[in-house]
Amino acid sequence: MSDLKVRILKAVQPDLDAIETALAKNLNPHLDLVRDVAGHILFSGGKRLRPLLMVLSARLCGYRGDYDKTFSTALEYLHAATLLHDDLVDGASLRRNKPAAHLQWGNSIAVLVGDFLLARALSVSAATGRARIVQILAELTEQMSQGEVHQLMRKGDIRLSEAEYLEVIRRKTAVLFETACRVSAVLAEASAEKESALAAYGLNLGMAFQIADDLFDYTLGTSQLGKDVGSDLREGKMTLPLIQGLKQAGVEDREWMVGVVQDPKFSSGDFLKLVGLLQASGAIRYVEQAAETYIFKAKEALALFPKTETLGTLIDIADYALHRRV
Amino acid sequence: MSDLKVRILKAVQPDLDAIETALAKNLNPHLDLVRDVAGHILFSGGKRLRPLLMVLSARLCGYRGDYDKTFSTALEYLHAATLLHDDLVDGASLRRNKPAAHLQWGNSIAVLVGDFLLARALSVSAATGRARIVQILAELTEQMSQGEVHQLMRKGDIRLSEAEYLEVIRRKTAVLFETACRVSAVLAEASAEKESALAAYGLNLGMAFQIADDLFDYTLGTSQLGKDVGSDLREGKMTLPLIQGLKQAGVEDREWMVGVVQDPKFSSGDFLKLVGLLQASGAIRYVEQAAETYIFKAKEALALFPKTETLGTLIDIADYALHRRV
Repeated sequence: MSDLKVRILKAVQPDLDAIETALAKNLNPHLDLVRDVAGHILFSGGKRLRPLLMVLSARLCGYRGDYDKTFSTALEYLHAATLLHDDLVDGASLRRNKPAAHLQWGNSIAVLVGDFLLARALSVSAATGRARIVQILAELTEQMSQGEVHQLMRKGDIRLSEAEYLEVIRRKTAVLFETACRVSAVLAEASAEKESALAAYGLNLGMAFQIADDLFDYTLGTSQLGKDVGSDLREGKMTLPLIQGLKQAGVEDREWMVGVVQDPKFSSGDFLKLVGLLQASGAIRYVEQAAETYIFKAKEALALFPKTETLGTLIDIADYALHRRV
Repeated sequence: MSDLKVRILKAVQPDLDAIETALAKNLNPHLDLVRDVAGHILFSGGKRLRPLLMVLSARLCGYRGDYDKTFSTALEYLHAATLLHDDLVDGASLRRNKPAAHLQWGNSIAVLVGDFLLARALSVSAATGRARIVQILAELTEQMSQGEVHQLMRKGDIRLSEAEYLEVIRRKTAVLFETACRVSAVLAEASAEKESALAAYGLNLGMAFQIADDLFDYTLGTSQLGKDVGSDLREGKMTLPLIQGLKQAGVEDREWMVGVVQDPKFSSGDFLKLVGLLQASGAIRYVEQAAETYIFKAKEALALFPKTETLGTLIDIADYALHRRV
């Protein structure tokens, strides 16, 4: 485990324990099957990054109440709901080294339990008594579902530009991080300035996390990923490594790459050759730098807060976005 | 058109027009595809019963604001979201005489646009500034998704009891009607007594509507239904006509009926024979009486309100639950 990860975990272990308890306690389904399916996705080694960001954001804004841990389940439930629906949409087979829920229980159950989790997220938020918090979360869900539709519409389209890719990941991932930080500032009744600063931190952190995730799909093995190697490529997802690779490749390599993108039955040899080309052309390095730029912006956004331990942990989490698998 | 329908439409036409405008105006998607799919389900001849109940409930409670029409879109969006997801879950092929969205655009788009509509419903509700309204709607969504899971778990199970059937339709349909009426009383800042009365009206009306729908699946033709005749039976849905039919049939007829339930490839002759048995055994009449009892309870719940034109329309709508296709 990296020093960075050790330091983060040491600082947040009591919060993570409290979040874990709250996640089990607030799920509250009527049916055992709903509990099983929701549990399959919720209690399978997720990093709890979103609830953790919420608890830390509220603390950074001086929150003194006792609803922060319960409230933090909202975005984990919402995240789990989107994983259930997105794995179905993407036809994914593995999630965190377990069969995806839609394969184990069928599409129908994955859809309905996703709906249940989405509703739980909004119930937990509404219990804050703040309509504005629910409004922000509902708008987030609108953005995320449309981000997924957008991605689906452009599947396998080799003309997807970097700008369009960034717009897709902003909607489907970064706004969730942004919202996690923002609503916690609202809960803590922070100033508009602090709320905006935390929202900017979350947005940039989310961009960095998704870009890094998309990078790891080309650079890490199945056991580290918890899902199949090359699954983005197999699903026809145009992510930044590929977009840059296509841009920087020579005519011949580019033609070969287009062939691989358009044939989801590529061999593992093909995949290794592709990764080699992405390395050699500088595409991998380009993507790392893009993630680093967002990490820098995320940290910069927090400049107005005093230098507390909580601030230190949020800074560490930003660095962890790119260095979490090394 | 029946006198009842003519009288209702005459009373509510300006409201229906305003609701129609609000539905188009508040949908507000970023993507044309989302607009197309949501429009396919939203603007295909729905009765607008849920938004209408909201507008009338608010009026009955003396609401004087101008948010009632916009607010009423919330439950129509939510209803459309559940239709998109449920048609996928049920494998339905037709909805209001058009191909179901999951067949026209694929499961993924149906899931994601459903999520979008669910989120729009909660956004529109949150804009009331009342966290309690959102809380009620989020709890409703929890109930409905679990009602669907419950129904799915018991598909084709000939042991489903009438009590369990009533519990399923309460969760998957009646709570939506209940909520439509309740939240409008909350919006109008009605007394707790009036809120409960309207909620009871909505719940009983919803039960009557679903029981009548399940009845029509056996007694009406495809063009009147807007979907395939016998589709509940084909999907293995155990509804009240069948539950009663199995209960009241003799040993031989019962065995034959079980065979039809367990073989989704039954012929139209088999279906006609089944309907004949349901008629002869008194099962159809039993189901009509069950619906009539709920209609009576719905009307009774409104006794505390003064006799205005709005009250008269709500009473007419209760009668319409069973008499809408005649």
